[in-house]
Amino acid sequence: MHTNRCYTADRMNLMDQNHRLVHLDLKGAPPRVEYLEQVIPLFKKLGATGLLIEYEDMFPYYGDLEEVASQHAYSKEAIYRIQQLAEENSLIIIPLVQSFGHFEFVLKHEKFRSLREVPNYPMALCPSNPDSLMAVCMMIDQVMELHQGLRWFHIGADEVYHIGICDKCKKRMHVQNLTQQQLFFSHCKAVLNYIKVKYPSVTAIMWDDMLRHTELPVLLESGLAGLVEPMVWHYLTKFLLPPDIWDKFSKLFPNIWFGSAFKGATGSNMYLTNIGYHIENHLVWVSLQEKEKQKFQTIRGYAVTGWSRYDHYAVLCELLPQALPSLGICLSVLNKGTFNADLHNGVSAVLKFKSHLPISPFQCLGAPPCDFPGHKVYRDMLDFNHLEASYEDLMHNESIFTWMNEYQIKRNFVNPVHVGPLLNAVAKLLESFRILKARLQSSLSEVFYDTATEEWMNVYFFPKKHKLKDIIENARNSGLSSLIE
Amino acid sequence: MHTNRCYTADRMNLMDQNHRLVHLDLKGAPPRVEYLEQVIPLFKKLGATGLLIEYEDMFPYYGDLEEVASQHAYSKEAIYRIQQLAEENSLIIIPLVQSFGHFEFVLKHEKFRSLREVPNYPMALCPSNPDSLMAVCMMIDQVMELHQGLRWFHIGADEVYHIGICDKCKKRMHVQNLTQQQLFFSHCKAVLNYIKVKYPSVTAIMWDDMLRHTELPVLLESGLAGLVEPMVWHYLTKFLLPPDIWDKFSKLFPNIWFGSAFKGATGSNMYLTNIGYHIENHLVWVSLQEKEKQKFQTIRGYAVTGWSRYDHYAVLCELLPQALPSLGICLSVLNKGTFNADLHNGVSAVLKFKSHLPISPFQCLGAPPCDFPGHKVYRDMLDFNHLEASYEDLMHNESIFTWMNEYQIKRNFVNPVHVGPLLNAVAKLLESFRILKARLQSSLSEVFYDTATEEWMNVYFFPKKHKLKDIIENARNSGLSSLIE
Repeated sequence: MHTNRCYTADRMNLMDQNHRLVHLDLKGAPPRVEYLEQVIPLFKKLGATGLLIEYEDMFPYYGDLEEVASQHAYSKEAIYRIQQLAEENSLIIIPLVQSFGHFEFVLKHEKFRSLREVPNYPMALCPSNPDSLMAVCMMIDQVMELHQGLRWFHIGADEVYHIGICDKCKKRMHVQNLTQQQLFFSHCKAVLNYIKVKYPSVTAIMWDDMLRHTELPVLLESGLAGLVEPMVWHYLTKFLLPPDIWDKFSKLFPNIWFGSAFKGATGSNMYLTNIGYHIENHLVWVSLQEKEKQKFQTIRGYAVTGWSRYDHYAVLCELLPQALPSLGICLSVLNKGTFNADLHNGVSAVLKFKSHLPISPFQCLGAPPCDFPGHKVYRDMLDFNHLEASYEDLMHNESIFTWMNEYQIKRNFVNPVHVGPLLNAVAKLLESFRILKARLQSSLSEVFYDTATEEWMNVYFFPKKHKLKDIIENARNSGLSSLIE
Repeated sequence: MHTNRCYTADRMNLMDQNHRLVHLDLKGAPPRVEYLEQVIPLFKKLGATGLLIEYEDMFPYYGDLEEVASQHAYSKEAIYRIQQLAEENSLIIIPLVQSFGHFEFVLKHEKFRSLREVPNYPMALCPSNPDSLMAVCMMIDQVMELHQGLRWFHIGADEVYHIGICDKCKKRMHVQNLTQQQLFFSHCKAVLNYIKVKYPSVTAIMWDDMLRHTELPVLLESGLAGLVEPMVWHYLTKFLLPPDIWDKFSKLFPNIWFGSAFKGATGSNMYLTNIGYHIENHLVWVSLQEKEKQKFQTIRGYAVTGWSRYDHYAVLCELLPQALPSLGICLSVLNKGTFNADLHNGVSAVLKFKSHLPISPFQCLGAPPCDFPGHKVYRDMLDFNHLEASYEDLMHNESIFTWMNEYQIKRNFVNPVHVGPLLNAVAKLLESFRILKARLQSSLSEVFYDTATEEWMNVYFFPKKHKLKDIIENARNSGLSSLIE
């Protein structure tokens, strides 16, 4: 069993600040361990100091939590292997276990349905049901058990949209004279106290969004000070944080974390990462840190988040391999405090780009030669982006609508002079889709489990390919085969 | 039998210039005679002096040409009735019969296949096959027969894209030392001479586009002078006519026609008329006429064209009833030589708009109250435009892609909190489509034959409605009925 418990006190102190954690959002397209073996050393090379692992249903929960582990959940051995890889590369690990909202991966199971705040909605658990805290603590225990020697543990606690709604909660709020916010604090404190008492060497972290708009007196009365280090997240280029957040938080929390984003933050239906956007997000963070740092005892550093889907029920968004160039650039921006040509050169070299890695993948014509773990996925996503552009052009082509309309094809009322070239353009594009299909399935399978490959292909690829295929088949069925070369 | 042969010589001279002909393009969505009974008097009120009737397959061809008449071709009685209506409203009639290209409505029939220039393409006839001229002359005879006392007859002859390609033509060009252009002239002259000899009181008109780029010496040698009056057409706002066209044409043709457009010229897949664009087209024509008129003996006037489809095989584009506001404005612009508020008021009043008729139908929220023949079609098209905008918004909605993807619905892997509101938005839009469907089918049927109603609905309406229906049905099949209110 390999852990990172052997750090000396000195080393730990050194490691208590300036972190750059790579967020592994395992709720979508979790990588195979074989891929992690390739990318964890790369994370180090790119300037990471640790991993924030959001296991979601990829942790091998057992016993009463058995259902929570998904079909492809990592084995215990895989969890140890990941820690060994982290240790070999001097990366700390901070596990993240949701404790309030984003609890779909638990509450979707019939067994845990009774813990829901809203019977029909699987998102938030009911803080007034004693079984809720028990379930959360059991999850924390199981994750702690496989991660000896942790310094931090993240309890999530972001975006709790359903709170104080059920009869139990309403009654409790009435009897105990609690606001919704106090109800939120109450459950968080129970979880945080549990960690503090049972795992005294571990400091808890939570997302800040449920606290950021709270007024200082209310925050001071919350009892959260001393129990948790907040992680203030913001992924946009125009920051919308309340102006008083730093003054407020610094009154309760001497140590603070920041959450930036390298992928999965510009659209729930995006599959390519717009690096330029994330550079801007990080540059705003860098200047913000410079401005606010003296208010805090320690800036712990950043979790550079990379979201795989917007929630458990959302489609996959940007996959990890295609976002490694973005991750490299973002980590370097945090490292250097700026973005410049040297940095661009440096990251391009680490990822073995023959020239500069493209900052906007949407404009580049064909995938540039490069060689990093998962570069085939990167290449195929860029190529798909081009095919998709051709597809959209063709599908919105006025001539296709006018002379090769489904209604005309069905009635075989077409003029070969129009339809021949159009059908052949469709057939040619379909052939390109066919070629890319095989490549994509192969490159995705090298990195991901079959469920992720299947999902990505069904969501992004097959609907378009099938539409092209339908056009050709309908044409053949209408006796137009001779027009297709 | 009612004809317009009884005009006195004086009246005819007066009517030899300043014409504003309404083009009836019957190749798509030909109106029922009952509708023509309502709109022909309106054309007069709006300032028209005649009708350019492009019969295409709506003429009751008989005998050897029987196949050419379509299922809903007008009867002889209908043709007489149209002429009676024209006469009652002091409108001249100029029939248009294609004589070279755009001959699909003839050449698509097996019987006439041998007349094709290119065996696989039904567009142009072969000018070297003696049967071609015979067919054209027979068509002219049959149309002339039902239109006694004509002053002009239009032989089309535009856009002949396939010429001098077949073996017969190539051989002839070689033997007679003809260019493609001379081959074109040769066939046109044969048709024009036939008219001149057999119908000496009728002057032929032809479209100018096959002549406009021809150099003057070649034009002078063509032998077309004295045989035909060209109709120079241009439908855009930025004119692309060769700069020497007026000098050139005035050397051969003392009398000239112009062709503007009030609909069907801004996109083969448009169903709403952008009046502003056509105002601009007419204003350019007005200033061009002012500039060039002294070069010609007579400016005959305008055919204000209104295209129903871009060719015989294209889908329907803008329908006549929804374009009557455009027609009214365009005729008035020609009449007044300008566009101003008075004119806008005047046309709005004739069409019984409660306020100004909207110049751009895309921006108006809901159909404005009005009352002209076919106003229900106008209203329904505007309403469909709004529904379509809502449809496009919904179909490109990020949340639908992300949380209500077909792939997720099929697997019933959805979160009611996301899918409930989305499904209900789809269901609500579908209901609006259902309501409009009934209205559209009824308003279209008042004006058009069932084939046009069926085509318009299948091309523009049903694909979108069916897509919405599929979404709801797939959701129901996946057990999500309870989420739909």
